[in-house]
Amino acid sequence: MDLRYDTVTFLSDYGLDDEFVGVVHSVIRSIAPEVRVVDLSHGIAPYDVRGAGLLLARSVEYLAPGVVLAVVDPGVGTTRRPVAVEVGDGASVLVGPDNGLLAAAVAMCGGPDRVVELSSVEHRLGDGSATFDGRDVFGPAAAHLCSGVDLDDLGGRIDPAGLLPAVVPVCELVDGNLHAEVLWVDRYGNAQLNVAPPDLEELGERVGLRTPAGLVPARVTETFAALDEGEVGLVVDSVGLVAVAFDRRSAAAELELAAATAVVIESGGPPRAAVTTQVDLGPRDRR
Amino acid sequence: MDLRYDTVTFLSDYGLDDEFVGVVHSVIRSIAPEVRVVDLSHGIAPYDVRGAGLLLARSVEYLAPGVVLAVVDPGVGTTRRPVAVEVGDGASVLVGPDNGLLAAAVAMCGGPDRVVELSSVEHRLGDGSATFDGRDVFGPAAAHLCSGVDLDDLGGRIDPAGLLPAVVPVCELVDGNLHAEVLWVDRYGNAQLNVAPPDLEELGERVGLRTPAGLVPARVTETFAALDEGEVGLVVDSVGLVAVAFDRRSAAAELELAAATAVVIESGGPPRAAVTTQVDLGPRDRR
Amino acid sequence: MDLRYDTVTFLSDYGLDDEFVGVVHSVIRSIAPEVRVVDLSHGIAPYDVRGAGLLLARSVEYLAPGVVLAVVDPGVGTTRRPVAVEVGDGASVLVGPDNGLLAAAVAMCGGPDRVVELSSVEHRLGDGSATFDGRDVFGPAAAHLCSGVDLDDLGGRIDPAGLLPAVVPVCELVDGNLHAEVLWVDRYGNAQLNVAPPDLEELGERVGLRTPAGLVPARVTETFAALDEGEVGLVVDSVGLVAVAFDRRSAAAELELAAATAVVIESGGPPRAAVTTQVDLGPRDRR
Repeated sequence: MDLRYDTVTFLSDYGLDDEFVGVVHSVIRSIAPEVRVVDLSHGIAPYDVRGAGLLLARSVEYLAPGVVLAVVDPGVGTTRRPVAVEVGDGASVLVGPDNGLLAAAVAMCGGPDRVVELSSVEHRLGDGSATFDGRDVFGPAAAHLCSGVDLDDLGGRIDPAGLLPAVVPVCELVDGNLHAEVLWVDRYGNAQLNVAPPDLEELGERVGLRTPAGLVPARVTETFAALDEGEVGLVVDSVGLVAVAFDRRSAAAELELAAATAVVIESGGPPRAAVTTQVDLGPRDRR
Repeated sequence: MDLRYDTVTFLSDYGLDDEFVGVVHSVIRSIAPEVRVVDLSHGIAPYDVRGAGLLLARSVEYLAPGVVLAVVDPGVGTTRRPVAVEVGDGASVLVGPDNGLLAAAVAMCGGPDRVVELSSVEHRLGDGSATFDGRDVFGPAAAHLCSGVDLDDLGGRIDPAGLLPAVVPVCELVDGNLHAEVLWVDRYGNAQLNVAPPDLEELGERVGLRTPAGLVPARVTETFAALDEGEVGLVVDSVGLVAVAFDRRSAAAELELAAATAVVIESGGPPRAAVTTQVDLGPRDRR
Repeated sequence: MDLRYDTVTFLSDYGLDDEFVGVVHSVIRSIAPEVRVVDLSHGIAPYDVRGAGLLLARSVEYLAPGVVLAVVDPGVGTTRRPVAVEVGDGASVLVGPDNGLLAAAVAMCGGPDRVVELSSVEHRLGDGSATFDGRDVFGPAAAHLCSGVDLDDLGGRIDPAGLLPAVVPVCELVDGNLHAEVLWVDRYGNAQLNVAPPDLEELGERVGLRTPAGLVPARVTETFAALDEGEVGLVVDSVGLVAVAFDRRSAAAELELAAATAVVIESGGPPRAAVTTQVDLGPRDRR
């Protein structure tokens, strides 16, 4: 065993019903048998580059060093460039399409050191059919990097400044109200906002939360479980951002939140009594 | 490679769309690189402690020795205790929240030997944010146990008798009818009951089965395939309990069965002819 | 480590919500701890032998050498035979039920060398309960083969000519129109046909495509991304067959295509202007 990297962390929008993920695993195993592949997620919605980039950014500090293989690639077969981005003085390499997917994670790793376009034909599979680059281009590149192939052997250098950036929305305080956006709704229905705890400091513990379902009172709190029944919370989540949560209920379902939904957090919030019926939007038995 | 345990069997309600499962894998790999993680299931419904406990009990005799990591944890962030339970004279350790999830599996392994509360700060990740204990508490504990950290180094001892028990419903014979409950509906629509084959002995081969869809005749039989078209069977399933089955159809869909649905098995059953239309509740093309 | 094969590629219709896949992994790990299991897919629809056989045939040339474990088995518990099929002068062995599932993949590997029926009781688990052969028969056989058990020790030889063949539909040119069938709809909604590029040669670049949604114009093209907005393409897909595609939209949803749907490709096709409204069947916001 003579591996340069021993772990490939794999993220895609392939889903698990087709053979795509398994075939990429097989290709990696055929090229670099000792490598371990860790599946980060393959449940990204088809073509959702933004969602995948955010997922990767949330995860990157917890990943084992090695190669990150990320494939969400609506532009497969076009001129978008397949790239490998070395970070952390060679501690890790991120492999994927240059469509913004990798950008936030690369930034969190201290920015790009070396970047190459994956143009080496001898490190690809097949005849260049343009529809399954995970199998033919990205997976093989990840495996060859693990085997010890140097980044520069996979293709020509690219100016790191030319990589497509990620577009991350920023929250904004307007007339004392914080205008924010949902970044992610998790399996439990918690809706992560583009809001860090300091952004909330001026607003107080009791706030109003305006969503597509109307204006509801919400409380800034430490844990999900600290919420009273039917109470909406603004909770610091597991990556340090503020999430909208109900205790053991889906905040997203109750308040009609999805990725990219706009919300406004208003100082003070409405009087509790006046909006009780609004808070309890969904009857328990509707779930 | 100097592992105390080389396998972590991992069960959760995290689903596979978010990064939760991948991040826990990564954390384990960072702490104990040689450990192999076997995913038992992550498709447990959110917060379904009962369903996860039953799944683990069904599986436990087939698992490779090592650490079982089970995280279905509606009480994360509250006072429920994170625990590690050693069983089988140290052959295996079950790690998870003390909320009943582990109880049936622990009992099937001969009961707890040593139990500790996972309170050691140095064996956790992060600053104690209270929302992702799989990543910060349970996953690291599992990995450290594999690496050879002694159970007692992970926290103080707990009296095994103080662990929360599982609540397993028992079937009951009332006036010659067996009152039972659905434990689990599998992917194929077979509905496992809290009934063992001896419980059926007095009822005969031909019985009536009362479900939310009405009373239908059913036959006690050996294999799924032995059922005639449209016939309902009570079949001994792969873990030795009695399941309601249709041949290649979903018994759950046809008979409106879900986990925790009450059913009654009646001796003798209704005359077949009288209920033919009831048996064939769902037309084939409805599936 | 003294393995005859070091990889088991695992395909089933078990889904990932129940414990079936995890238990089979555990059984393999208990028998042959060093073996790596690559999950090809477990998202096959329940009992869909045809779909699983096609998936395996699409994948087989990319798989690492070793054992292929394929379990889609509506006939479990009946007289259908559990088999192991050696191919490629022993390079690989395919293990599964003899119901046509393995046939296309075996053919692509050059046909069967030795075939045995998995009848050896000492290489099974349990007492022969007839409902979970993945755990009790197929998984153990795969693991034992990896450990070095000879094929002939797993059971008696079968005449390879007696294996159940796969039924693969063939496209047909009738009066200048190509009558074809959907083999597979992938996650992105691309609908693979039983049509190879040469089958289209006489029809020209502009064709008509008759589907359950009506007759639409379509263009034979190289890449998905080359399609104009709202244009239907016939694209050579990642395994070399022709697929119906929309650029970044689901062709299957727009044109009402599913596995086994009949379609007709007509030479020349309708005039574009006349059918514009038909092409744009689904408004963008319907997705």
